[in-house]
Amino acid sequence: METQDIDHVGVVVENLEEAIKFYEEKLGMKCVYNDVLKDRGLKVAFLKGKEGETAVELLEPVDHNDMNNTVAKFLKNKGQGMHHLAVRVSDISASLKDLEGKGISLIDKSPRPGAMGHTVAFVHPKSVMGLLLELVQH
Amino acid sequence: METQDIDHVGVVVENLEEAIKFYEEKLGMKCVYNDVLKDRGLKVAFLKGKEGETAVELLEPVDHNDMNNTVAKFLKNKGQGMHHLAVRVSDISASLKDLEGKGISLIDKSPRPGAMGHTVAFVHPKSVMGLLLELVQH
Repeated sequence: METQDIDHVGVVVENLEEAIKFYEEKLGMKCVYNDVLKDRGLKVAFLKGKEGETAVELLEPVDHNDMNNTVAKFLKNKGQGMHHLAVRVSDISASLKDLEGKGISLIDKSPRPGAMGHTVAFVHPKSVMGLLLELVQH
Repeated sequence: METQDIDHVGVVVENLEEAIKFYEEKLGMKCVYNDVLKDRGLKVAFLKGKEGETAVELLEPVDHNDMNNTVAKFLKNKGQGMHHLAVRVSDISASLKDLEGKGISLIDKSPRPGAMGHTVAFVHPKSVMGLLLELVQH
Protein backbone atom coordinates (compact mmCIF):
# COMPACT_ATOMS: atom_id res chain seq x y z
CA MET A 1 0.00 0.00 0.00
CA GLU A 2 1.05 3.57 -0.60
CA THR A 3 -0.13 6.41 1.65
CA GLN A 4 -1.12 9.44 -0.43
CA ASP A 5 -1.43 11.83 2.51
CA ILE A 6 -2.90 12.20 5.98
CA ASP A 7 -6.65 12.56 5.38
CA HIS A 8 -7.84 13.46 8.86
CA VAL A 9 -7.30 13.02 12.58
CA GLY A 10 -10.25 11.69 14.59
CA VAL A 11 -10.80 13.42 17.95
CA VAL A 12 -13.43 12.27 20.46
CA VAL A 13 -15.33 15.04 22.28
CA GLU A 14 -18.05 15.20 24.97
CA ASN A 15 -20.20 17.71 23.09
CA LEU A 16 -19.94 18.10 19.33
CA GLU A 17 -21.68 21.47 19.04
CA GLU A 18 -19.50 23.06 21.74
CA ALA A 19 -16.39 21.53 20.18
CA ILE A 20 -17.22 22.88 16.70
CA LYS A 21 -17.72 26.33 18.24
CA PHE A 22 -14.37 26.05 20.07
CA TYR A 23 -12.42 24.96 16.99
CA GLU A 24 -14.00 27.72 14.90
CA GLU A 25 -13.81 30.57 17.39
CA LYS A 26 -10.61 29.76 19.23
CA LEU A 27 -8.50 27.88 16.69
CA GLY A 28 -9.73 29.60 13.53
CA MET A 29 -10.80 26.45 11.73
CA LYS A 30 -13.90 26.04 9.59
CA CYS A 31 -16.57 23.34 9.83
CA VAL A 32 -16.99 21.84 6.35
CA TYR A 33 -19.27 18.88 7.23
CA ASN A 34 -21.60 18.05 10.09
CA ASP A 35 -23.76 14.93 10.12
CA VAL A 36 -25.09 11.99 12.10
CA LEU A 37 -23.78 8.58 11.03
CA LYS A 38 -26.78 6.57 12.19
CA ASP A 39 -25.32 3.14 11.47
CA ARG A 40 -22.28 3.95 13.63
CA GLY A 41 -24.19 5.84 16.33
CA LEU A 42 -21.99 8.91 15.91
CA LYS A 43 -22.35 12.64 15.45
CA VAL A 44 -19.40 13.82 13.37
CA ALA A 45 -18.01 17.08 12.04
CA PHE A 46 -15.02 17.80 9.81
CA LEU A 47 -13.05 21.01 10.32
CA LYS A 48 -10.26 22.39 8.18
CA GLY A 49 -7.71 25.18 8.29
CA LYS A 50 -7.44 27.98 5.73
CA GLU A 51 -5.48 25.82 3.27
CA GLY A 52 -7.96 23.01 3.73
CA GLU A 53 -5.82 19.94 3.11
CA THR A 54 -6.03 17.76 6.20
CA ALA A 55 -9.11 17.74 8.45
CA VAL A 56 -9.89 17.25 12.11
CA GLU A 57 -12.87 14.90 12.51
CA LEU A 58 -14.73 15.53 15.75
CA LEU A 59 -16.72 12.53 17.02
CA GLU A 60 -19.41 12.34 19.68
CA PRO A 61 -21.43 9.20 20.37
CA VAL A 62 -25.19 9.67 19.94
CA ASP A 63 -25.70 7.61 23.11
CA HIS A 64 -22.90 8.19 25.65
CA ASN A 65 -24.03 5.16 27.68
CA ASP A 66 -23.98 2.62 24.84
CA MET A 67 -20.91 0.56 25.72
CA ASN A 68 -21.26 -1.38 22.47
CA ASN A 69 -20.30 1.84 20.72
CA THR A 70 -16.48 1.98 20.59
CA VAL A 71 -16.43 5.79 20.72
CA ALA A 72 -18.75 5.93 23.77
CA LYS A 73 -16.49 3.34 25.41
CA PHE A 74 -13.38 5.34 24.51
CA LEU A 75 -14.94 8.49 25.99
CA LYS A 76 -15.87 6.69 29.20
CA ASN A 77 -12.50 4.94 29.65
CA LYS A 78 -10.00 7.47 28.30
CA GLY A 79 -11.90 10.75 28.12
CA GLN A 80 -11.76 13.30 25.32
CA GLY A 81 -8.79 13.27 22.95
CA MET A 82 -7.25 11.83 19.80
CA HIS A 83 -8.84 8.60 18.65
CA HIS A 84 -7.60 7.60 15.19
CA LEU A 85 -5.43 8.63 12.26
CA ALA A 86 -6.81 8.36 8.75
CA VAL A 87 -4.60 8.10 5.69
CA ARG A 88 -5.79 8.52 2.13
CA VAL A 89 -5.08 5.76 -0.38
CA SER A 90 -5.95 5.53 -4.06
CA ASP A 91 -7.19 1.92 -3.97
CA ILE A 92 -8.55 0.87 -0.59
CA SER A 93 -9.37 -2.74 -1.56
CA ALA A 94 -5.86 -3.33 -2.87
CA SER A 95 -4.39 -1.64 0.22
CA LEU A 96 -6.37 -3.90 2.59
CA LYS A 97 -5.30 -6.97 0.66
CA ASP A 98 -1.69 -5.81 0.77
CA LEU A 99 -1.80 -5.17 4.53
CA GLU A 100 -3.44 -8.50 5.22
CA GLY A 101 -0.77 -10.21 3.14
CA LYS A 102 1.85 -8.54 5.35
CA GLY A 103 0.25 -10.02 8.48
CA ILE A 104 -1.50 -6.84 9.64
CA SER A 105 -4.78 -7.38 11.57
CA LEU A 106 -7.75 -5.63 9.99
CA ILE A 107 -10.88 -4.50 11.83
CA ASP A 108 -12.73 -4.14 8.52
CA LYS A 109 -11.85 -6.94 6.09
CA SER A 110 -13.55 -5.04 3.31
CA PRO A 111 -14.21 -1.32 2.70
CA ARG A 112 -17.46 0.24 3.92
CA PRO A 113 -19.18 3.61 3.49
CA GLY A 114 -17.82 6.35 5.80
CA ALA A 115 -18.44 10.06 6.39
CA MET A 116 -18.60 12.51 3.48
CA GLY A 117 -19.45 9.76 1.01
CA HIS A 118 -15.93 8.29 1.26
CA THR A 119 -15.03 4.62 1.51
CA VAL A 120 -13.22 3.59 4.69
CA ALA A 121 -11.72 0.65 6.61
CA PHE A 122 -10.06 0.41 10.02
CA VAL A 123 -6.85 -1.43 10.85
CA HIS A 124 -6.26 -2.92 14.30
CA PRO A 125 -4.04 -0.82 16.66
CA LYS A 126 -2.24 -3.94 17.89
CA SER A 127 -0.77 -4.26 14.40
CA VAL A 128 0.17 -0.57 14.05
CA MET A 129 2.11 0.10 17.26
CA GLY A 130 -0.88 1.35 19.22
CA LEU A 131 -2.26 3.50 16.42
CA LEU A 132 -5.89 3.07 15.36
CA LEU A 133 -5.43 3.52 11.61
CA GLU A 134 -8.20 4.26 9.12
CA LEU A 135 -7.80 3.97 5.37
CA VAL A 136 -9.88 6.38 3.30
CA GLN A 137 -10.55 6.43 -0.41
CA HIS A 138 -12.29 9.52 -1.83
CA MET B 1 -5.56 32.80 15.61
CA GLU B 2 -6.10 31.20 12.25
CA THR B 3 -5.11 27.60 11.55
CA GLN B 4 -3.46 27.30 8.14
CA ASP B 5 -3.48 23.50 8.05
CA ILE B 6 -2.68 20.39 10.08
CA ASP B 7 1.12 20.30 10.15
CA HIS B 8 1.69 16.88 11.72
CA VAL B 9 0.41 14.29 14.15
CA GLY B 10 2.77 13.22 16.93
CA VAL B 11 2.82 9.48 17.65
CA VAL B 12 4.79 7.95 20.54
CA VAL B 13 6.57 4.66 19.80
CA GLU B 14 8.70 2.19 21.75
CA ASN B 15 11.40 1.92 19.11
CA LEU B 16 11.91 4.66 16.54
CA GLU B 17 14.00 2.67 14.07
CA GLU B 18 11.51 -0.20 13.99
CA ALA B 19 8.62 2.24 13.65
CA ILE B 20 10.24 4.07 10.71
CA LYS B 21 10.75 0.72 9.01
CA PHE B 22 7.10 -0.23 9.65
CA TYR B 23 5.68 3.05 8.32
CA GLU B 24 7.90 2.85 5.24
CA GLU B 25 7.52 -0.84 4.41
CA LYS B 26 3.93 -1.48 5.51
CA LEU B 27 2.19 1.89 5.09
CA GLY B 28 4.17 3.20 2.12
CA MET B 29 5.27 6.43 3.76
CA LYS B 30 8.69 8.06 3.43
CA CYS B 31 10.97 9.26 6.21
CA VAL B 32 11.92 12.89 5.42
CA TYR B 33 13.67 13.78 8.70
CA ASN B 34 15.34 11.81 11.50
CA ASP B 35 17.13 13.49 14.37
CA VAL B 36 17.77 13.58 18.12
CA LEU B 37 16.36 16.63 19.93
CA LYS B 38 18.88 16.65 22.77
CA ASP B 39 17.26 19.45 24.78
CA ARG B 40 13.96 17.53 24.80
CA GLY B 41 15.49 14.07 25.26
CA LEU B 42 13.72 12.75 22.17
CA LYS B 43 14.51 10.81 19.05
CA VAL B 44 12.14 12.00 16.31
CA ALA B 45 11.36 11.20 12.69
CA PHE B 46 8.93 12.81 10.25
CA LEU B 47 7.21 10.65 7.64
CA LYS B 48 5.04 11.75 4.76
CA GLY B 49 2.80 10.21 2.14
CA LYS B 50 3.29 10.55 -1.60
CA GLU B 51 1.65 13.99 -1.74
CA GLY B 52 3.72 15.09 1.24
CA GLU B 53 1.45 17.67 2.86
CA THR B 54 0.86 16.55 6.44
CA ALA B 55 3.41 14.49 8.37
CA VAL B 56 3.43 11.83 11.05
CA GLU B 57 6.04 12.66 13.70
CA LEU B 58 7.28 9.54 15.46
CA LEU B 59 8.69 10.18 18.94
CA GLU B 60 10.79 7.93 21.17
CA PRO B 61 12.32 9.11 24.44
CA VAL B 62 16.14 8.80 24.55
CA ASP B 63 15.82 7.53 28.15
CA HIS B 64 12.64 5.44 28.63
CA ASN B 65 13.07 5.60 32.41
CA ASP B 66 13.33 9.39 32.76
CA MET B 67 9.95 10.24 34.28
CA ASN B 68 10.74 13.96 33.98
CA ASN B 69 10.45 13.45 30.23
CA THR B 70 6.77 13.84 29.29
CA VAL B 71 7.06 11.41 26.37
CA ALA B 72 8.73 8.71 28.49
CA LYS B 73 5.97 9.23 31.06
CA PHE B 74 3.29 9.01 28.35
CA LEU B 75 4.82 5.77 27.04
CA LYS B 76 4.93 4.25 30.54
CA ASN B 77 1.38 5.31 31.51
CA LYS B 78 -0.54 5.05 28.24
CA GLY B 79 1.66 3.00 25.92
CA GLN B 80 2.31 3.67 22.26
CA GLY B 81 -0.13 5.84 20.32
CA MET B 82 -1.17 9.33 19.29
CA HIS B 83 0.32 12.04 21.48
CA HIS B 84 -0.31 15.50 19.99
CA LEU B 85 -1.77 17.38 17.05
CA ALA B 86 0.23 20.19 15.47
CA VAL B 87 -1.37 22.97 13.45
CA ARG B 88 0.53 25.41 11.27
CA VAL B 89 0.05 29.13 11.84
CA SER B 90 1.59 32.07 10.03
CA ASP B 91 2.45 34.10 13.16
CA ILE B 92 3.02 31.94 16.23
CA SER B 93 3.65 34.83 18.67
CA ALA B 94 0.42 36.56 17.69
CA SER B 95 -1.45 33.23 17.88
CA LEU B 96 -0.20 32.55 21.43
CA LYS B 97 -1.17 36.06 22.52
CA ASP B 98 -4.60 35.61 20.96
CA LEU B 99 -5.17 32.22 22.67
CA GLU B 100 -4.00 33.57 26.04
CA GLY B 101 -6.39 36.50 25.65
CA LYS B 102 -9.20 33.99 25.10
CA GLY B 103 -8.39 32.28 28.42
CA ILE B 104 -6.59 29.25 26.93
CA SER B 105 -3.81 27.75 29.13
CA LEU B 106 -0.45 27.66 27.40
CA ILE B 107 2.36 25.21 28.19
CA ASP B 108 4.85 27.43 26.33
CA LYS B 109 4.18 31.13 26.95
CA SER B 110 6.58 31.99 24.15
CA PRO B 111 7.68 30.14 20.99
CA ARG B 112 10.76 27.92 21.10
CA PRO B 113 12.85 26.03 18.52
CA GLY B 114 11.34 22.69 17.45
CA ALA B 115 12.20 19.92 15.01
CA MET B 116 13.14 20.68 11.39
CA GLY B 117 14.19 24.24 12.27
CA HIS B 118 10.58 25.25 12.91
CA THR B 119 9.30 27.38 15.77
CA VAL B 120 6.81 25.67 18.09
CA ALA B 121 4.70 26.10 21.24
CA PHE B 122 2.39 23.72 23.11
CA VAL B 123 -1.09 24.51 24.42
CA HIS B 124 -2.48 22.74 27.51
CA PRO B 125 -4.89 19.82 26.80
CA LYS B 126 -7.21 20.91 29.64
CA SER B 127 -8.00 24.00 27.55
CA VAL B 128 -8.48 22.13 24.25
CA MET B 129 -10.93 19.38 25.23
CA GLY B 130 -8.26 16.79 25.98
CA LEU B 131 -6.17 17.55 22.91
CA LEU B 132 -2.46 18.30 23.33
CA LEU B 133 -2.15 21.01 20.69
CA GLU B 134 1.11 22.26 19.18
CA LEU B 135 1.42 25.43 17.14
CA VAL B 136 4.09 25.39 14.43
CA GLN B 137 5.46 28.21 12.34
CA HIS B 138 7.76 27.29 9.43
